[in-house]
Amino acid sequence: MTTVNAARLHARIASLARFGALPGGGVTRPCWSPPYEEARAWLLAEIRAAGLSAWVDPAGNVLGGLGASSFSAAAPAVLTGSHIDTVPEGGILDGALGVLAGLECLHAIREASATPRRPLVVAAWSDEEGRYGSLFGSRAFCGRLDVAAIPTMAAADGERLVDAMARAGFDAARAPAAAAPAGAVHAYVELHIEQGPRLDEAGVPIAAVDSIVGVRRSRLIFRGQADHAGTTPMDRRRDAFLAAADYALRARELVVERGGGRSVTNIGVVYVHPGVSNIVPGRAELVHEMRSPDDDTLEHLARACEALARDIGDKRGIGVEIQRTSATTPVACSPRVQAAVVAACTQLGLPCTTLYSAAGHDAQNLALITDAGMVFIPSHGGKSHRVDEISDPEAIERGANVLLGTLLTLAAE
Amino acid sequence: MTTVNAARLHARIASLARFGALPGGGVTRPCWSPPYEEARAWLLAEIRAAGLSAWVDPAGNVLGGLGASSFSAAAPAVLTGSHIDTVPEGGILDGALGVLAGLECLHAIREASATPRRPLVVAAWSDEEGRYGSLFGSRAFCGRLDVAAIPTMAAADGERLVDAMARAGFDAARAPAAAAPAGAVHAYVELHIEQGPRLDEAGVPIAAVDSIVGVRRSRLIFRGQADHAGTTPMDRRRDAFLAAADYALRARELVVERGGGRSVTNIGVVYVHPGVSNIVPGRAELVHEMRSPDDDTLEHLARACEALARDIGDKRGIGVEIQRTSATTPVACSPRVQAAVVAACTQLGLPCTTLYSAAGHDAQNLALITDAGMVFIPSHGGKSHRVDEISDPEAIERGANVLLGTLLTLAAE
Repeated sequence: MTTVNAARLHARIASLARFGALPGGGVTRPCWSPPYEEARAWLLAEIRAAGLSAWVDPAGNVLGGLGASSFSAAAPAVLTGSHIDTVPEGGILDGALGVLAGLECLHAIREASATPRRPLVVAAWSDEEGRYGSLFGSRAFCGRLDVAAIPTMAAADGERLVDAMARAGFDAARAPAAAAPAGAVHAYVELHIEQGPRLDEAGVPIAAVDSIVGVRRSRLIFRGQADHAGTTPMDRRRDAFLAAADYALRARELVVERGGGRSVTNIGVVYVHPGVSNIVPGRAELVHEMRSPDDDTLEHLARACEALARDIGDKRGIGVEIQRTSATTPVACSPRVQAAVVAACTQLGLPCTTLYSAAGHDAQNLALITDAGMVFIPSHGGKSHRVDEISDPEAIERGANVLLGTLLTLAAE
Repeated sequence: MTTVNAARLHARIASLARFGALPGGGVTRPCWSPPYEEARAWLLAEIRAAGLSAWVDPAGNVLGGLGASSFSAAAPAVLTGSHIDTVPEGGILDGALGVLAGLECLHAIREASATPRRPLVVAAWSDEEGRYGSLFGSRAFCGRLDVAAIPTMAAADGERLVDAMARAGFDAARAPAAAAPAGAVHAYVELHIEQGPRLDEAGVPIAAVDSIVGVRRSRLIFRGQADHAGTTPMDRRRDAFLAAADYALRARELVVERGGGRSVTNIGVVYVHPGVSNIVPGRAELVHEMRSPDDDTLEHLARACEALARDIGDKRGIGVEIQRTSATTPVACSPRVQAAVVAACTQLGLPCTTLYSAAGHDAQNLALITDAGMVFIPSHGGKSHRVDEISDPEAIERGANVLLGTLLTLAAE
């Protein structure tokens, strides 16, 4: 039975972790940033060194092929991958595991001189974490980019996608050309850390993912009146930050109460303007994110939160502008891919459970164009999107071998 | 009777407003910034052109003298002035009025060839608005700088005072040398816009100020845990921003309820870290400011708010660090200076009332070393610390003539 070279996989994980490494551990490697571009160049070299064909598409996705050097409906490929960008102060496995385990699987298959029926491709999708727009690279690959929106796509700090991509040598307007030809992907399977506590607490090494939550993000802008913080009577102040604070607390309660137990919410971006102690805040901006595996619930929550924001604005004399900035729909994973994951676990003697993914993943875009699925391994303490995110080396090796078995099953079809 | 040249005063106000001018009106001219340094150079040239002696002290205070080119206990000066720094997106009169009206008074006295018994000096005090530490220049002049704190004084964005002053050619460590010799100031009077609605609504043109509120500022740092915003169960999150939001709303209610009707509060600085939508905020920082004309009330409120923050932290599993960053004591204005203001109003046939100042001013430092007072003129709609802060040209002229009469009375003593 072909297995992965675990030492090589761990060495590559450690190598990739150097790019954007933080002094106390963890990594900050947002897409298109200098450390990201260095990591991308390193990955291309690793793909070539593994004896695979290597290419980059117009969306900046890095691709490595075994038996293919492009996508073609004439020979549909079995695709795996994930991403190598990170959130600020993120961990070394989120995304990186799926890319490097995918690379290791193709490397091991090539070394074993196995000749799968179908070509195999590993992908590192651009900007999964959404500095400029979530799941950008896989959206482009799956033909789901909103072309008209590209010129205005920007990071929370205002930097435009077109400028960031130009700095890296890409023309953002050409990103839609990354779309795969129809029928060029036979199936997609992505290995990822769970990023939550369920597998770790249950003591189960592998999950076949059955669905992925949808994520909705809105920008809320509260407009009050900047005034002198000493001389303006308290009852005449129109404080934009207090309105935003009120919204943050009540929106959290609303989602917990009405989200059916599987919905979550976060306000992670907060700007208060003009931002000095002796001026009443005239403007406050929040980015509000909600997730749920059920689309109707998400829409219901989004509308209820918008009504809440307007109600708070009315009562406090604060203008409220709400921009729905992104929305993904919850998706179901392919039963065929789930079955291949379960079969690989059985062959390896590993217990396997079924989970929904509480995080968004590139697989949800791939599910729009092919049979797609995911494999989860446990995260220590469920920690992720933080510098101490980690999984056991043995858990990583088990996950990579399950991915290998799944890919071989799918490639033999 | 000597009067000010109103046209010249208005022209100087318009000239100073160019430095740091914003496209839609108003001005951003924080102390030590490039537009501030340009404005300071312009002011020095205006002082010299008015036939006054001009000098700059080690704290960066700009001084113009009639009958004096330094401070000496042998010939105590009558001092006037204010500041030419502004808050971000501030108005063109806050501070600028007092400096330019003071300059105009000395200019008019010199032109009238009047020979007051005492020397007269006009001052533009550094960093009244407290980008690096409130009332910095007048604190230095009055010998109240905390010398040990200078190396760590910094703006809300982290920029250090020593670096900002070095950029402008000053050695911050030498600022304490700006302290005036004991007995070198006979009296101080400062003209300022009210920055609140009381004079405007009462239809009274002049107020003699009887006291100035104390201002306390604290930095509160809430430390939670950065976590994945999708996969971390809601009941396990330790969201630093939600704790800060809770504090902001409840601290406001606390000050309104227990502040005795004359206390105000503001949270104008808010930072949320790491500041991305898909990470639960691990840290939130607030700058909380409170003002009251009563020092016991201020101390009571400060302690109650600190207890509130710790209580919120305990209930939410969030660490709370509280740094008291600055505190000024409420001060009483000199009855002698108030009497001189009232006499000037009587001579000009202007109604005059008495107000406390709800804003902090350099006069509160001068009150520690000499008889000090203030003159207020109405602010349109009470607006200040905003780009549409304005007063009628006639109100400005009336205020400048009251200042002139007051200075002449004090200089004749």
